[in-house]
Amino acid sequence: MVETVSENRAFGGVQGVYSHASEACACDMTFGLFLPEEARDGPVPVLWYLSGLTCTHENAMTKAGAQAWAAEQGIALVFPDTSPRGEGVADDEAYDLGKGAGFYVNAVQEPWAPHYNMWDYVAEELPALIGAEFAVDLERQAITGHSMGGHGALTLGMALPGRFTSVSAFAPIAHPTESDWGRKQLTAYLGDEGWEAHDATLLMRDDGFDGPVLVDQGSGDQFLDLLMPEALSEAMAARRQEGAFRMQKGYDHSYFFISTFMEEHVAFHAEALWAR
Amino acid sequence: MVETVSENRAFGGVQGVYSHASEACACDMTFGLFLPEEARDGPVPVLWYLSGLTCTHENAMTKAGAQAWAAEQGIALVFPDTSPRGEGVADDEAYDLGKGAGFYVNAVQEPWAPHYNMWDYVAEELPALIGAEFAVDLERQAITGHSMGGHGALTLGMALPGRFTSVSAFAPIAHPTESDWGRKQLTAYLGDEGWEAHDATLLMRDDGFDGPVLVDQGSGDQFLDLLMPEALSEAMAARRQEGAFRMQKGYDHSYFFISTFMEEHVAFHAEALWAR
Repeated sequence: MVETVSENRAFGGVQGVYSHASEACACDMTFGLFLPEEARDGPVPVLWYLSGLTCTHENAMTKAGAQAWAAEQGIALVFPDTSPRGEGVADDEAYDLGKGAGFYVNAVQEPWAPHYNMWDYVAEELPALIGAEFAVDLERQAITGHSMGGHGALTLGMALPGRFTSVSAFAPIAHPTESDWGRKQLTAYLGDEGWEAHDATLLMRDDGFDGPVLVDQGSGDQFLDLLMPEALSEAMAARRQEGAFRMQKGYDHSYFFISTFMEEHVAFHAEALWAR
Repeated sequence: MVETVSENRAFGGVQGVYSHASEACACDMTFGLFLPEEARDGPVPVLWYLSGLTCTHENAMTKAGAQAWAAEQGIALVFPDTSPRGEGVADDEAYDLGKGAGFYVNAVQEPWAPHYNMWDYVAEELPALIGAEFAVDLERQAITGHSMGGHGALTLGMALPGRFTSVSAFAPIAHPTESDWGRKQLTAYLGDEGWEAHDATLLMRDDGFDGPVLVDQGSGDQFLDLLMPEALSEAMAARRQEGAFRMQKGYDHSYFFISTFMEEHVAFHAEALWAR
């Protein structure tokens, strides 16, 4: 059912890569899972990390430096892929549509509909699988992500009350219904309906999140116009959302930005996870 | 003289990539340099990181997780390339000879001799350049490396007494004159002479290092037969070398191994650097 692609000892635990036949995406999917040493003795809390455009399960797993802090806190990390994969899966020449750009939605438009169901994959299928196959405690889940993955983390967090103890994001696509990073993909995947459920700013205005939220954004990010952080920041403050929106001076959109603040994000989630 | 390829804000400092015309290698060379926040106020100590076979300046810079700890300790990191580069530079089809496999020697054999002078590059040219162009204190240098780069760190450290406060290595090629990772390259680059100066075990038997040495080796390393850690461990103990050789249970040869123990290596060097 789950095939081991690789397992490397890391920080006293194991960084694994696994593949499986996905029903939601109707293709084989690959994900990374870091289990800390404590997982030998029983299920541990888990932090989801959703990646950005062009990434696979591997980028953050090797470049975000999260395992050091997860090991310190005794929590697991999951690194899902960002889209369905394989020869039979529709794609686009642009880097921001198709493979590597699933946007964490269930597509209803052709040619995307049969495979591009990343919402169901990340919200339902993959949690059930890791809960059944690994020492992961589904009662204690938190979620973070970068860019498109920050969008995914925020929208999943707000759409599934009670699921996650805490939500954070690095430079999220914050207001996709008003941005070229968003309108293009929502049109392609969804047509002209159902956009509101996939816009963190709109969800924040409506309901917010029933726990703490942490957002970091670099002031030197080359994609600020596409990310629209000001919309989310305004919505968080207007909603009186518990948490923080932080503008980090001079940081850009790279993994150097992510790794710099990863320790604080993991500690933020660990506090909420262990309090549940 | 030095061209900026990229600069990313990271951990309060800057992770830069720079290129320059190298005299030693007779080609353009690229290196990574992390400068912590403290470098704004004046020169800081520096830790060299020499990479292994197939790597460029970039692998460790993005995957070893060293910047977090260097920033904490207020020290710089240098990530040199592992060989000369460019169209006019001789190469070999094998991954372990030619480009990406300079072995930190000065080649005297054709076709390698004109460009493959990585010893001079790392021992002389690059230190002079970073000392002149960046806020790096050449009176306080330490050196580490992985695999072929661990070999480079150990041999440079022992061959240049007084240069480095401390030497460490992750899974070094420990006894290349007796291993297929070594005999092949030493033959190609040097012919049948001058091998002793490039074998950490032989140097350790002769003179050792005038400061602390730290070596980490994974017991699950897939290349143990080629690395020959037992030869170096025996030589360290026989010489009464200050320091430690540590066998880390279950770890392999990957960057997951390196990043797991990077915090301890950086702290080890920082203690020696700040004491000088």
